[in-house]
Amino acid sequence: MTEFSLHRALPVAEVPEWHFDTDVVVIGFGAAGACAAIEAAEAGARVTLFERNSGSGGASALSGGEIYIGGGGGTDAQRAAGFEDTTEALAAYLKAAGGPCADEAKCDLYAQHSLAHYNWLKAQGVPYRGNYLPGKHIEPVDDSTLIWSGSEAAEPFCDIATPAPRGHVIQHAGWGGGRPLVDILEARTRDLGVEIVTDARAIALIADGERIVGAVLRIDNANHFVKASKGVVLATGGFVFNEEMRRKYCPETFKLSDPIGDKDDGTGILLGMGAGGDAIHMEQFFTTCPWTMPEPHAYGVFVNVAGQRFINEDCYHGRVSRYAVDQPGGKVYLLLDCAHFSQPLDIANMRIAGTGETWAEVEAELEMPEGTLSATMEFYNRHAREGRDPLFGKRQPILTPLEEGPFVALELDFHDSYFSFFTLGGLRTNIDGEVLDREGAPIAGLFAAGRCTSGLPAWGHGYSSGLSLADCTFFGRRAGAKAAQT
Amino acid sequence: MTEFSLHRALPVAEVPEWHFDTDVVVIGFGAAGACAAIEAAEAGARVTLFERNSGSGGASALSGGEIYIGGGGGTDAQRAAGFEDTTEALAAYLKAAGGPCADEAKCDLYAQHSLAHYNWLKAQGVPYRGNYLPGKHIEPVDDSTLIWSGSEAAEPFCDIATPAPRGHVIQHAGWGGGRPLVDILEARTRDLGVEIVTDARAIALIADGERIVGAVLRIDNANHFVKASKGVVLATGGFVFNEEMRRKYCPETFKLSDPIGDKDDGTGILLGMGAGGDAIHMEQFFTTCPWTMPEPHAYGVFVNVAGQRFINEDCYHGRVSRYAVDQPGGKVYLLLDCAHFSQPLDIANMRIAGTGETWAEVEAELEMPEGTLSATMEFYNRHAREGRDPLFGKRQPILTPLEEGPFVALELDFHDSYFSFFTLGGLRTNIDGEVLDREGAPIAGLFAAGRCTSGLPAWGHGYSSGLSLADCTFFGRRAGAKAAQT
Repeated sequence: MTEFSLHRALPVAEVPEWHFDTDVVVIGFGAAGACAAIEAAEAGARVTLFERNSGSGGASALSGGEIYIGGGGGTDAQRAAGFEDTTEALAAYLKAAGGPCADEAKCDLYAQHSLAHYNWLKAQGVPYRGNYLPGKHIEPVDDSTLIWSGSEAAEPFCDIATPAPRGHVIQHAGWGGGRPLVDILEARTRDLGVEIVTDARAIALIADGERIVGAVLRIDNANHFVKASKGVVLATGGFVFNEEMRRKYCPETFKLSDPIGDKDDGTGILLGMGAGGDAIHMEQFFTTCPWTMPEPHAYGVFVNVAGQRFINEDCYHGRVSRYAVDQPGGKVYLLLDCAHFSQPLDIANMRIAGTGETWAEVEAELEMPEGTLSATMEFYNRHAREGRDPLFGKRQPILTPLEEGPFVALELDFHDSYFSFFTLGGLRTNIDGEVLDREGAPIAGLFAAGRCTSGLPAWGHGYSSGLSLADCTFFGRRAGAKAAQT
Repeated sequence: MTEFSLHRALPVAEVPEWHFDTDVVVIGFGAAGACAAIEAAEAGARVTLFERNSGSGGASALSGGEIYIGGGGGTDAQRAAGFEDTTEALAAYLKAAGGPCADEAKCDLYAQHSLAHYNWLKAQGVPYRGNYLPGKHIEPVDDSTLIWSGSEAAEPFCDIATPAPRGHVIQHAGWGGGRPLVDILEARTRDLGVEIVTDARAIALIADGERIVGAVLRIDNANHFVKASKGVVLATGGFVFNEEMRRKYCPETFKLSDPIGDKDDGTGILLGMGAGGDAIHMEQFFTTCPWTMPEPHAYGVFVNVAGQRFINEDCYHGRVSRYAVDQPGGKVYLLLDCAHFSQPLDIANMRIAGTGETWAEVEAELEMPEGTLSATMEFYNRHAREGRDPLFGKRQPILTPLEEGPFVALELDFHDSYFSFFTLGGLRTNIDGEVLDREGAPIAGLFAAGRCTSGLPAWGHGYSSGLSLADCTFFGRRAGAKAAQT
């Protein structure tokens, strides 16, 4: 009896019969898979899309539907708000956000084509109101288009690339724009005649020599052999729900509480590696805690258990959170004064760990040694009054003295508070979405996009909202188009 | 014409002729390879050892020859010095030192057999004087045996495991015990009739179905096909000299200056992955800067560019260095007072960046904002006088006030000073040195040991001197013995 493995492509000679015969197989029906299917179908290929759940969605549908877009003089929304974004600035920002893990070719290509990609999204039917919403938001609270979604205006990024807001959000009332975004992309795949098979789980690839020519899908408790004459596109997401993979490749995440994703168990990464694909930057992860809500909390100051600040808190909430979880002692504190404190979000589970009429009283309640937190805040306030943060370069208006007592310290415990996280490492692909082997050569017939690859959001410390969906949608399209062409 | 690849085992059917026919092939002649060869030969196998250089050595010969040993009531040297080390304490320390990357089964097994391994080393002819050298040393300056070589007596390790010194160094005058250690192991391999072939570079494995049955070696500009009836042991070291691998798997190392190793280009890791092996914790690296020399410098205080301390400086120099390179700004400062300052080592390339009659003057010379470094040192000295470090738990005697002016700040620039580094990630092996595939099953006929595997020194932040050679020698032996048995 034939055994199937994620780790080893099945030789085509062992296929007993074909249950599906198509040109391009796409596995996974989040934004990456949908965009791959659309482009492959547009190019004239017969496309069959398999999804293990009963409908489209994936992690994309759990997101805010925010896509990182700019350059080329600016989008309509950017220009209307007075931001003349350049391709150079976008490329430079993307590279800085990718840090030591940046894929420069992907950054450059995306920067060049970002505006055209925005127009493509609109052409698929994604609505954008076209307006700019100032302030510090995780997602727009109304149906606005454009927000600051990264660390563009914060050091060191603002010194590297002219800042502009680039988070473009589907027109949608309130949070949760990811679901309608995927719905629109799904509708396009249906219009284009993509064959969609749900409740279908990939259990193996099929190889003819070194070329991938299909996949084995588990449907209704039976194995289905799927012939893909042009190629297979993996779009199955990351591995945040695969504890064994996290233990081996990304063990830092075990200190965090809340994996986010939709059955992201690394299937595509394992399938790709099993076909000889290279997996890179597997230790990288995104994390955030919704500490900037209510919005006045964005004006707070973070200290570690030694009472030290560790970052300019005006950068992206996820960057602050990522640096926070590097701090010793398993927790950090968000310090607020009376002018900025509101009841924290229930979901954040940040307890009030200390209060006081002075920062010295807060320090004492936290059982920190005298002259630690209080000295940090004395120093911070003194310089904030002068509009300066000589230690970390935080900028106004987020830079503001916290001097109106009473004062409060919220505790963000990495494991007990809400630190959501997902993985960023994955298959190494080229700019056409071809999965590369360890020598850097494309594996014939095998493509991948989204979080089963390492892409634009390559480095946890530099993440910005919208980078992952930008990567999923843009390089999903590239993968689908290339597969159809093969 | 047959093409050879590190990334793909050659099917045995494509072997034109056998140039060598042996039972166990060992690739790499550092400590791991030597120990594997010795055990395999002792078990009665015919053993052929290939080394790409013209003689034995590898990174082992560049080391201090220090091996991390203890437990079981203590070694002769530990007991003579009054340390009654327990197996439980050793196991607990090894797990803490492995942090999130610890392989618990390897830690437990090594702790149980550490004393017996010490006796085995002696039986091979490795001489130990048997005495204890107190103080803070990177390597003994004389021919002493036992030094504190890790963070055993420092927080948090001292709270996790009863401290004992465990760095056991071959009797050898001064630094550089690694060379004579390998020489002795080499002599043993020769006595046992191991066939040794130098100037032989591995370019591929040979597979019969899923079983590894040999290797292709490049010798005298010609391909040599080597039949290994029992197995192949990879002992080729890490990948610190493979820039492409570092870029993909360990890019943080690009901020550091000085890779150390001996042609460690990841050959074994690539060969193992190409045979289906799993590579884990690839982002991990060891780094150190010789800041504890001259010894009074060990009493210094580290601050980052914000003037903040970041660790208890009484832990292992490499642990301090690893946390240092996590700090922002590309450099840290080592602060010393007149009572502790000496001329730094030339090799360390640490420049004097600031001096002053007070810490405030040093702060000003470093162009740090007023009230940063000076406040840090006021706080530190005040508590050090009371014998306490409430922030990081540094302990006496290393904890001592720095209050005798003039004062000095040495700059440790990650890229310009001497931050040596090597990689720690590699093939996943079981306790018998069998290379595991991504499903956790052994790959028949394939074994590995040393830094081409992830082993006892799994986590850069927890490294201690002697962990790597303990791992190389002990699990090298296990791999050789298991291969011979196959």
